[in-house]
Amino acid sequence: MKAVIFDKELKYTQDYKKPVPQAGEALVKVTTAGICNTDYEITKGYMGYAGVLGHEGVGIVEEVNGKDQSLLGKRVVPEISYGCKKPDCIRCAQKMYRHCPARHTLGIVQKDGCFAEYFTMPVEVLFEVPDNVTDEQAVFTEPLAAALEINEQLHIKPYQKTLVLGDGKLGLITALALNAQNINVTLAGKHQNKLDIAKKQGVDTTLLGELEIRKEWDVVVEATGSISGFETAIALTVPRGVLVLKSTVAGEKPMNLAPVVIDEITVLGSRCGQFPAALRMLKSQKIDFSPLISGIYDAKDAVKAFEKNKEKDTLKILLKF
Amino acid sequence: MKAVIFDKELKYTQDYKKPVPQAGEALVKVTTAGICNTDYEITKGYMGYAGVLGHEGVGIVEEVNGKDQSLLGKRVVPEISYGCKKPDCIRCAQKMYRHCPARHTLGIVQKDGCFAEYFTMPVEVLFEVPDNVTDEQAVFTEPLAAALEINEQLHIKPYQKTLVLGDGKLGLITALALNAQNINVTLAGKHQNKLDIAKKQGVDTTLLGELEIRKEWDVVVEATGSISGFETAIALTVPRGVLVLKSTVAGEKPMNLAPVVIDEITVLGSRCGQFPAALRMLKSQKIDFSPLISGIYDAKDAVKAFEKNKEKDTLKILLKF
Repeated sequence: MKAVIFDKELKYTQDYKKPVPQAGEALVKVTTAGICNTDYEITKGYMGYAGVLGHEGVGIVEEVNGKDQSLLGKRVVPEISYGCKKPDCIRCAQKMYRHCPARHTLGIVQKDGCFAEYFTMPVEVLFEVPDNVTDEQAVFTEPLAAALEINEQLHIKPYQKTLVLGDGKLGLITALALNAQNINVTLAGKHQNKLDIAKKQGVDTTLLGELEIRKEWDVVVEATGSISGFETAIALTVPRGVLVLKSTVAGEKPMNLAPVVIDEITVLGSRCGQFPAALRMLKSQKIDFSPLISGIYDAKDAVKAFEKNKEKDTLKILLKF
Repeated sequence: MKAVIFDKELKYTQDYKKPVPQAGEALVKVTTAGICNTDYEITKGYMGYAGVLGHEGVGIVEEVNGKDQSLLGKRVVPEISYGCKKPDCIRCAQKMYRHCPARHTLGIVQKDGCFAEYFTMPVEVLFEVPDNVTDEQAVFTEPLAAALEINEQLHIKPYQKTLVLGDGKLGLITALALNAQNINVTLAGKHQNKLDIAKKQGVDTTLLGELEIRKEWDVVVEATGSISGFETAIALTVPRGVLVLKSTVAGEKPMNLAPVVIDEITVLGSRCGQFPAALRMLKSQKIDFSPLISGIYDAKDAVKAFEKNKEKDTLKILLKF
């Protein structure tokens, strides 16, 4: 079958072995998938992963290996991780499957991803897509769920002020998702054209250069992925406020955590999320994702699509299978 | 009066001007005070402070400038910060005086400290010391309150496992304070002689070299003050666990925060605390602080006492006025 794989290098192939659904798994025929920066990071060695890339995708269930055939023929999106469910796994016993140390993660950890004609996943992590949600929208379920993970971890109160720092796709989707929940949110970034995408949908925005660096934000979401972004985020968070660390900040320069102690800031690491709330939001059509799509490529042009993904002004790139 | 001051250099003087209590303040005659590492940091330039050092002290109220004279003649300890209480101060309106941007902090921010014959503080931050608590014990009220601040910020559940990393006085007092609340706590450090102080009082201890670096601690308290300690703490915290940042970690080398995101760890900055719970614990005599006292110096030997404080095996140094 067609597949976009990483194995020392990024490749498109027509000869990848079609997966066979194991007990409890469904076989999904992919229609559309989205490139995430994590995919790009993997091509630079992140997680030491080799195999089919991709964890943002939508497709039709063609086969189910198991009694419950209710998903057969349905259009679904996959949550990206599932746990080992072994009796002695504390994380799985707590239903923290996303944190199971032996977890499988689609296209990231010991499980072929969705940049292929077919992928398999356990039926319990497949969610039916509402009829009024297009494939192009459904691809955003995963990044939207990652944004809504903040609301799973943190109670943002109606009177609190939230700032999202960074106007890449992560920052944009996070700001749009918080705004869609009536949270008082401002998006700060360096690119007026990107800020305008959020602004047109009712989000308060500001150029970073025009933002006063004062400790006045109850919640600050770091979505720049840079050390300087993290340090700016600290400088903007009120004492005892919460700094949500949404992007992986790898050390490039020494950083000073003393202000975290002095102002008793909570730094909250936040990763991927559960799908039901994201699908509910997609169904409501509260967010227009179309301006976030910077290109749609046929799978055979995947290498070119990855090149495009690296460009500064690119937001989401989709692949068609 | 006698005072230990920092003004470009550490000095002992007999000619410092005796303070006059302002409206609402009490004048306290110091008997005993304790050197904290923050005092030492100040002598290296921390906070840009100049004036009388010291924020751990006990003394007798000699004068009160105000109607309520109930503290007169009483033995008291001072909470270290008070807010501006101006009507437009959000932090003071929320009673977060310790985080008031215009706060005064004893011997640290715009307020002469307690390494002197006398200091003044507002009566509402002075707390009477129970009769059964000696002056030498009372000096530990402030660091003990800082340890108990963790319990103000975080609900540690009875079934959770807490690890304190670092066997300096901060780590020791934190481990002893958590243990005194029946919390399942283990202290890890590099010095068997220091670990033994906690062990003799019922705390589980382990040499750091013998600790398995596994993500199995629900709460990890970083009390080493080093980047490598912080990174070890991350590696020990369970997914979705809490890493309490108790010591100020200033960047010496680049650090990697990606695991904070991947494991969705909460990094909780934690500073100084309120005194009532600390005094209740001192009164209960649940903790024996005597093995933490490494030396008692007359105030006139303060410079020598600071030298002793720097030595590797030193824990708490007391000054007598």
